[in-house]
Amino acid sequence: MKLSSTSSQADDVRMRGFKQRSPVDDIISWLDQQSIHLQTETINIQDACGRILAEDITSNINIPSFSRSMMDGYAIKASDAQGASSYNQLQLDIVGKSMPGQGADVAVKPGQTVRIMTGAPLPNGADAVLPAENVEFHDDHIFIMESVAQGRNIGQPGEDIKQGHTVLQQGRRLRPQDIALLASIGYENIAILQRPRIKIIVTGNELLPVGSTPQGFQIVNSNGPMLEALARRDGADAGRSDIIKDNPEQLRDAMLSDCDVLLLTGGTSVGEEDFVPLLLAELGELTFHGVTMRPSRSTGFGKIGDTLVFLLPGNPVACLCAYDFFAGRTIRRFAGLLPQWPYPVVRKKLKHKISSIIGRTDYARVRRVDDQVESVSVSGAANISSTTVADGFVIIAADSEGYPAQADVDVFLYELPY
Amino acid sequence: MKLSSTSSQADDVRMRGFKQRSPVDDIISWLDQQSIHLQTETINIQDACGRILAEDITSNINIPSFSRSMMDGYAIKASDAQGASSYNQLQLDIVGKSMPGQGADVAVKPGQTVRIMTGAPLPNGADAVLPAENVEFHDDHIFIMESVAQGRNIGQPGEDIKQGHTVLQQGRRLRPQDIALLASIGYENIAILQRPRIKIIVTGNELLPVGSTPQGFQIVNSNGPMLEALARRDGADAGRSDIIKDNPEQLRDAMLSDCDVLLLTGGTSVGEEDFVPLLLAELGELTFHGVTMRPSRSTGFGKIGDTLVFLLPGNPVACLCAYDFFAGRTIRRFAGLLPQWPYPVVRKKLKHKISSIIGRTDYARVRRVDDQVESVSVSGAANISSTTVADGFVIIAADSEGYPAQADVDVFLYELPY
Repeated sequence: MKLSSTSSQADDVRMRGFKQRSPVDDIISWLDQQSIHLQTETINIQDACGRILAEDITSNINIPSFSRSMMDGYAIKASDAQGASSYNQLQLDIVGKSMPGQGADVAVKPGQTVRIMTGAPLPNGADAVLPAENVEFHDDHIFIMESVAQGRNIGQPGEDIKQGHTVLQQGRRLRPQDIALLASIGYENIAILQRPRIKIIVTGNELLPVGSTPQGFQIVNSNGPMLEALARRDGADAGRSDIIKDNPEQLRDAMLSDCDVLLLTGGTSVGEEDFVPLLLAELGELTFHGVTMRPSRSTGFGKIGDTLVFLLPGNPVACLCAYDFFAGRTIRRFAGLLPQWPYPVVRKKLKHKISSIIGRTDYARVRRVDDQVESVSVSGAANISSTTVADGFVIIAADSEGYPAQADVDVFLYELPY
Repeated sequence: MKLSSTSSQADDVRMRGFKQRSPVDDIISWLDQQSIHLQTETINIQDACGRILAEDITSNINIPSFSRSMMDGYAIKASDAQGASSYNQLQLDIVGKSMPGQGADVAVKPGQTVRIMTGAPLPNGADAVLPAENVEFHDDHIFIMESVAQGRNIGQPGEDIKQGHTVLQQGRRLRPQDIALLASIGYENIAILQRPRIKIIVTGNELLPVGSTPQGFQIVNSNGPMLEALARRDGADAGRSDIIKDNPEQLRDAMLSDCDVLLLTGGTSVGEEDFVPLLLAELGELTFHGVTMRPSRSTGFGKIGDTLVFLLPGNPVACLCAYDFFAGRTIRRFAGLLPQWPYPVVRKKLKHKISSIIGRTDYARVRRVDDQVESVSVSGAANISSTTVADGFVIIAADSEGYPAQADVDVFLYELPY
């Protein structure tokens, strides 16, 4: 495809719209088939919670590595307690003390006991621990009032983790307790999957960098920061967005960035100066362009080499919608998270009807009114405030003409996950 | 309270346990009444997603700041389209082009039109935009085939955001689209609440730093890294945990750290060398010590000045349980997140019965077996692996004796939130 055609005729053909739009479900099916192969990296376990383990973890040691007490109490020989009861209290002499990390310097002989703390090593000679609250204490001796089984209240070596066992498997998303386990068996660093690397390009001659005051006909890059936040929410490694002018050469260079997923917004439709779809077709493959949905109908999808490319609409609501329907789902999956919508869902009644047409998926922003929801004014995809005053959105599936007033609908709440 | 008493007699009294344990609900009520006053800080909006806004945000400008086109199409005078239909096609001459950020250098006069792109400024003289797909294009002129209302497909100044209006309110947890809104009205930095500052202290002479291979009777600090991960999950600013020896002077210094919430684990029970509860009582207030629950019955709660203090058990399962029941809930609330359990809940049938006793809250780790769940072996709170092989846990409330086999129970899944 050539970009040199700038005649009004060619422009007009492009402005007339998409030859064919694809249904949302077809695109999601295609996206769900795409795979990326993330690099691994080695990081400190103390930074690894939430990351995806890239190796099987085997323990080189037993935990505990020694017999330890499970209680604060007294280490004894179980045979010394035989026949003990409240009517037959048996006396044992306290001959030492076992503390965590230290142990007793004496062995327990018949008729003797060693005071012992939770986690402390069991002294030689002892084979059971009596809880402190079950004995009667007298300065240098105790009376025991119950018999006890061998091994009682003792953690055996390897009882928690056995030497040589695989304790965590590759692919696991690491939880706080996994970090504790890794620490306890002596790990400091582990291999994890890198986060998917996301490059965000915002195109348009009218764009000013964040922090500028909009003036004249210029506007500030706002889709870029929004996409950065969305991609990071979804587990991506996303740097700051780049503003690129509507210039095919600069765009081409930017689109060849090394990344796993490329998000482009602006210049992605079929209007004049919408170079991006043509460039994508030239550099790789423009697999889909145009979706039967509202908003976001101009969204495009393709690949450049191994990079998955999303052409997101420049209108901010459409950009958010297209990201969430398509890019977010894919990025979450690549990051090892759950692909489904990241928003909590509540079931609510519609205050007023919402209309759609068969064959088109609609994304309707709604707000709470008492215990119902109503559409936020349908002023179009250009107004970002419709997504900040909204509490969430309702999806009207392609096979639905919408919902009547008082219908129960699923409302996806615009809340950050947890 | 004095710490100098180290006689066996005093130790023994302490070892005999808690004078009185408090119910879980009483402690949660007390915690929910505690408030902290976080400092504010100013950060770049591109780092602010998920943070709590500490100021009202008012827009100094209108968005859009100029009349803009909502479509790719043709800017016209609506009066020129009066009476147009497919049987009465009216011709307009193309006299210019309006691009985003740039605008047309001509005004639209009667009988004229200007090509216009989405987001581009409306040329002088025009008062409506016809979508490109609704006109017939002929090189330097178009035929229009429908009439159009004044203002059609035009975004009016202030339609999205009105100058002087408050667009986001203090206390809001910022969403990706809020960041877009802030960028679009020219903000670069905003005031947000600081994250609650959490200090984590792990006590015990037996503890080795992360990365050590456990040897002899020593073990590696594993509760510390787990608590770091938990606190960060819950929105806290938590640095690396500190290991402090069982030494009252060093502990006292460490406990006087400047922070919002202090988490201490190890030495928190009533055993020998459990200095921490006594120190808390000396330095501030030991409000509760001992909870009618299993595990975590030795958990303690109090304050030092404005710092809320949690004494968490040293056994790792009990430490996790106590954190999640009490500290996590409080930290999430302080961080502006939802206080409830951060785990997804599924309803499952129990394969085998789970017993408890009236008056005690139980935390039972369970794993999936086919579509049911069963208890993970009840080897006690010392075995961290019981929480890594478990898929989640079941809570048996204080007023319940447990559940019979085949009972439907709520299972809290050990999954990271999203």
